[in-house]
Amino acid sequence: MGNVDYDDYPCSGMNVDESVHGVAIPPPQPFLKSMKYSMKETFFPDDPLRRFKNQPASKKLVLGLQYFFPIFEWAPSYTFQFLKSDLIAGITIASLAIPQGISYAKLANLPPILGLYSSFIPPLIYAMMGSSRDLAVGTVAVGSLLMGSMLANEVNPTQNPKLFLHLAFTATFFAGLLQASLGLFRLGFIVDFLSHAAIVGFMGGAATVVCLQQLKSILGLEHFTHAADIVSVMRSVFTQTHQWRWESAVLGFCFIFFLLVTRYFSKKQPKFFWVSAMTPLASVILGSLLVYFTHAEHHGVQVIGELKKGLNPPSLTDLVFVSPYMTTAIKTGLIVGIIALAEGIAVGRSFAMYKNYHIDGNKEMIAIGTMNIVGSFTSCYLTTGPFSRSAVNYNAGCKTAASNIVMSIAVMLTLLFLTPLFYYTPLVVLAAIIVSAMLGLIDYEAAIHLWKIDKFDFFVCISAYMGVVFGSVEIGLVIAVAISVLRILLFVARPRTFVLGNIPNSVIYRNIEHYPNANRISGILILKIDAPIYFANASYLRERISRWIDEEEDRIKDTGETILNYVILDMSAVGNIDTSGISMLEEAKKMVERREQQLVLVNPGSEVMKKLNKSSFQKDVEGNWIYLTVEDAVRACNFACKTNPKRDESEGWNNV
Amino acid sequence: MGNVDYDDYPCSGMNVDESVHGVAIPPPQPFLKSMKYSMKETFFPDDPLRRFKNQPASKKLVLGLQYFFPIFEWAPSYTFQFLKSDLIAGITIASLAIPQGISYAKLANLPPILGLYSSFIPPLIYAMMGSSRDLAVGTVAVGSLLMGSMLANEVNPTQNPKLFLHLAFTATFFAGLLQASLGLFRLGFIVDFLSHAAIVGFMGGAATVVCLQQLKSILGLEHFTHAADIVSVMRSVFTQTHQWRWESAVLGFCFIFFLLVTRYFSKKQPKFFWVSAMTPLASVILGSLLVYFTHAEHHGVQVIGELKKGLNPPSLTDLVFVSPYMTTAIKTGLIVGIIALAEGIAVGRSFAMYKNYHIDGNKEMIAIGTMNIVGSFTSCYLTTGPFSRSAVNYNAGCKTAASNIVMSIAVMLTLLFLTPLFYYTPLVVLAAIIVSAMLGLIDYEAAIHLWKIDKFDFFVCISAYMGVVFGSVEIGLVIAVAISVLRILLFVARPRTFVLGNIPNSVIYRNIEHYPNANRISGILILKIDAPIYFANASYLRERISRWIDEEEDRIKDTGETILNYVILDMSAVGNIDTSGISMLEEAKKMVERREQQLVLVNPGSEVMKKLNKSSFQKDVEGNWIYLTVEDAVRACNFACKTNPKRDESEGWNNV
Repeated sequence: MGNVDYDDYPCSGMNVDESVHGVAIPPPQPFLKSMKYSMKETFFPDDPLRRFKNQPASKKLVLGLQYFFPIFEWAPSYTFQFLKSDLIAGITIASLAIPQGISYAKLANLPPILGLYSSFIPPLIYAMMGSSRDLAVGTVAVGSLLMGSMLANEVNPTQNPKLFLHLAFTATFFAGLLQASLGLFRLGFIVDFLSHAAIVGFMGGAATVVCLQQLKSILGLEHFTHAADIVSVMRSVFTQTHQWRWESAVLGFCFIFFLLVTRYFSKKQPKFFWVSAMTPLASVILGSLLVYFTHAEHHGVQVIGELKKGLNPPSLTDLVFVSPYMTTAIKTGLIVGIIALAEGIAVGRSFAMYKNYHIDGNKEMIAIGTMNIVGSFTSCYLTTGPFSRSAVNYNAGCKTAASNIVMSIAVMLTLLFLTPLFYYTPLVVLAAIIVSAMLGLIDYEAAIHLWKIDKFDFFVCISAYMGVVFGSVEIGLVIAVAISVLRILLFVARPRTFVLGNIPNSVIYRNIEHYPNANRISGILILKIDAPIYFANASYLRERISRWIDEEEDRIKDTGETILNYVILDMSAVGNIDTSGISMLEEAKKMVERREQQLVLVNPGSEVMKKLNKSSFQKDVEGNWIYLTVEDAVRACNFACKTNPKRDESEGWNNV
Repeated sequence: MGNVDYDDYPCSGMNVDESVHGVAIPPPQPFLKSMKYSMKETFFPDDPLRRFKNQPASKKLVLGLQYFFPIFEWAPSYTFQFLKSDLIAGITIASLAIPQGISYAKLANLPPILGLYSSFIPPLIYAMMGSSRDLAVGTVAVGSLLMGSMLANEVNPTQNPKLFLHLAFTATFFAGLLQASLGLFRLGFIVDFLSHAAIVGFMGGAATVVCLQQLKSILGLEHFTHAADIVSVMRSVFTQTHQWRWESAVLGFCFIFFLLVTRYFSKKQPKFFWVSAMTPLASVILGSLLVYFTHAEHHGVQVIGELKKGLNPPSLTDLVFVSPYMTTAIKTGLIVGIIALAEGIAVGRSFAMYKNYHIDGNKEMIAIGTMNIVGSFTSCYLTTGPFSRSAVNYNAGCKTAASNIVMSIAVMLTLLFLTPLFYYTPLVVLAAIIVSAMLGLIDYEAAIHLWKIDKFDFFVCISAYMGVVFGSVEIGLVIAVAISVLRILLFVARPRTFVLGNIPNSVIYRNIEHYPNANRISGILILKIDAPIYFANASYLRERISRWIDEEEDRIKDTGETILNYVILDMSAVGNIDTSGISMLEEAKKMVERREQQLVLVNPGSEVMKKLNKSSFQKDVEGNWIYLTVEDAVRACNFACKTNPKRDESEGWNNV
């Protein structure tokens, strides 16, 4: 029984060993077995093969098919009720997809028709392969802008539109290839390194930049900077004040107002979600009629013009695999691929959480990747699961990925029969649709939440925002990832250490700063190390431990207590250690002994114990000064102290 | 008293609260105060201002002067005894410094005389500013090779030797600037990111490469590749077999044998350390005499030739600050600066540990940086504290940095009067000196030690070695740092979680794999998370926790125990958490509740508790399901379970 207060025992008569728990040396594990375990945890944390266990071969085949094509899982149990719901949701998102598709294609410096193409083929692929029931597939504003601006650095989209288009297909192909490979090789955790805070800042920044870009269409400007940062855009806007067209601007602000009011209304009254979902299409129709009847296209209001009728032409042969363009396409593809993936997976996960079902990140990556690869062969550019469209899908009551099929069919019909209707659609309406969608992405509430809970996360968020707005989308992304990773490294490089004290009337020892009622034990300094001990923090910890001892000795000198005899290191939170860490412990031990004190370790975990056992540390301490709990260690120290008041005489003493 | 077995209490009659310890919400800290604390821990972990506290202004001035110029600390108490020891040590290291200096300068494609210049001025600076008593300053093989090969990528040293020389000064200047700034801005911890394992592999690889390079001199080849990798060197050697000079080769291998034998002898008999220290100079004298009398310089044995008499000429005006060369110089300077710093600091720390005194990393950086900046103005190139020379210094019994002054004076006398004596020194002797020094750097024993204790560290080491040998020194360095950092990131991205069980007859709960005698508690799953919860691992942990519950439920089904009612998360080792981590906990709670179970947290640290308190998590659980120890949590669960056997009815229940 370890449940005794050590004060109950007269020190000299106490047989410490009876109640003290030793630290076990973990059973040795063959190298290959532990390696296999780490590999599994790293790449298969979700254990996807679990359901395949103990199944006949035919069942395994079906399960495998269902794994890659979830449609085989849900289609057999598809009901008429589901169809009704999916039909409504599909039509709703199609009415949003058509104007958004056209708008975003313009954002990427691509022909508007590509936006429609991209809402036809990819949703079909996703409906078969995707595991989310709520994700609505389509192009995204940030991805479009990023792709457009990165490719424009290499090829001028106005001077060489054909090459630019082909590069866009190629970049989409590589984006898809990356996404699918990440999923196949189970490297999905790379996406996790984009922290939530970084994404909030990055998305907000990108939305701001996209809004600013719309000033071109809203003010009816002919020439505009290709750069996306706020300084260039503002210079471009204010050096051309004489070119501003008031007709266009008035129209633009009216539509933005209209869109925002309906969105606000729908937010207040969730059952009227369809009002805000339909508004973009209504705006397009309204705008087109207005231009048609007033002939505003001759008065400074730019219109879309002719859209080619017909379905997606094949584009497999358009892919560019020659340098120097291919390098640009690969670079662009990798960056936009990761960004699109992060958005798609985050959106999928959020809605899965609302509806309590599970989404497999790696499977999603394969689905999104495949839809982009196939898309790049059929004149589509980068698609993923945009938040706005998926939210509408969810609100419209979609039940399965079949709503994507419905949307796809609606877009197909538009492509086949309705494209001429968009001739008179004013660009300014498209700009208004983008602005109103983007304003929703500037999530200042999330930023405030970050500030409240974690200042560092807020710093990451605001840096990403500033990086995007004042630099470029890539700079913002690099800053966000770099700061996030730096934080992890700093956490490991500067682990917290703190002094533990005994909580009155218990055997519990806790941080004395957190629990001010915890009492220090006289003559013993108890330290807790709060992180793994690695090369990156080994020398810091050595210095910090030495400083703790200095400070404790100063304190003791001031209060006139007994001298410091023992330094206890609580290793409960030390999850792992490397060879530098082992050396650090050996050095710390020497340092403590030089001060005529004894170093005591408490509760090293299995990894730590295994390595200590192999090193010379274990031999040095003769296995005696390692205990399972702080309480045991304190009792052993007190016992040793009382039986041998002059500790230097008791060197090599064993508490047998 | 928390020291009671819960079985002693009849569940229904027990007032849980009496013996259960609540988790305190840490006292609120003003943002600025906690920010100041983190900053201090990050940049001033050694608390350098501690000694300045409560001192009069004049004393503060003296202390400040002593801080930057430790010579003011030790010089006043310098004794004649010290002088005697330092004199012997200084002369010994000078006898090593002269041939090594000449050899390493050739390794850097620089005029041999620079090696002597670099052993004159920098040691004087270090003697004033350095805090190590054992470091002997001079040029280093790896740094010389790295600098020579990086600069040779930009400027051909044989075609344009003058520009090459000026670039070397410029690179040295930037290296010094970087080193001094790292020290001044207290960023010394950057050096810690070069792990011991990485340095062992990197140094071994560099030593191998340097040895291979010596085949040029040993075989007497005129033309040789500038690349340093093993493939290029071997190709260069074996395509010129008809150019091999046997005279040179025989001489070379004789001297290598001589040097190795004396070193082996000195190692066995430490008091004859001076034998191996003097051998290089003896070899130079022997070799020169041999050539002088046999006129071997006409028979394929290359000699140094003329060395300019006189002290270092100023080189301040030689520094190159024009592009494109400046970029190369900066890049080279940064990389060799970091490498040199890592070696100098590691060497200084090791000897300080032997002699039990303290070295301040940041102060050392300022000293090493200043000596390189001043060096670049006085025709010196990159210097640091090489291991071999410092070891000889230590063995020769040096007492203070004054031994550097003695060496400096000896080198000065050589420069003034003895340079003509080196005319006939054969290059092959210098090559032999380098080879014998480098063979000592290939630390295969350390590699075996790494393999035994930590396989991953061994992997880092061997990757760095391979990178240097088959790629280049830079590639090896990048690989080593990248893998080391990746390991930290992987540790955070894939933290260990394990099931805790109760150790019989105690209130202790430990990992059931580490302690096979620990018992699971029926109906309760106790998990411990072994790392901070960050964005990088939040989704992994969510999935892993869900899998643990699945596995536990499967196990329960097999054994027919009671159903799983509680999931306890032991947060003792969770040192920190960010907003993604808080969201993860919220999601995990929802997930657990969906399974009609209750999530219980145990012992969240102060950082975690602070953030939980600000988030909605705390409100959700109503502050009830957080306990200070696992034991408390288990008792509370058992109590709740027995009083309310159907747990779903007890929702919102408070254990007041």
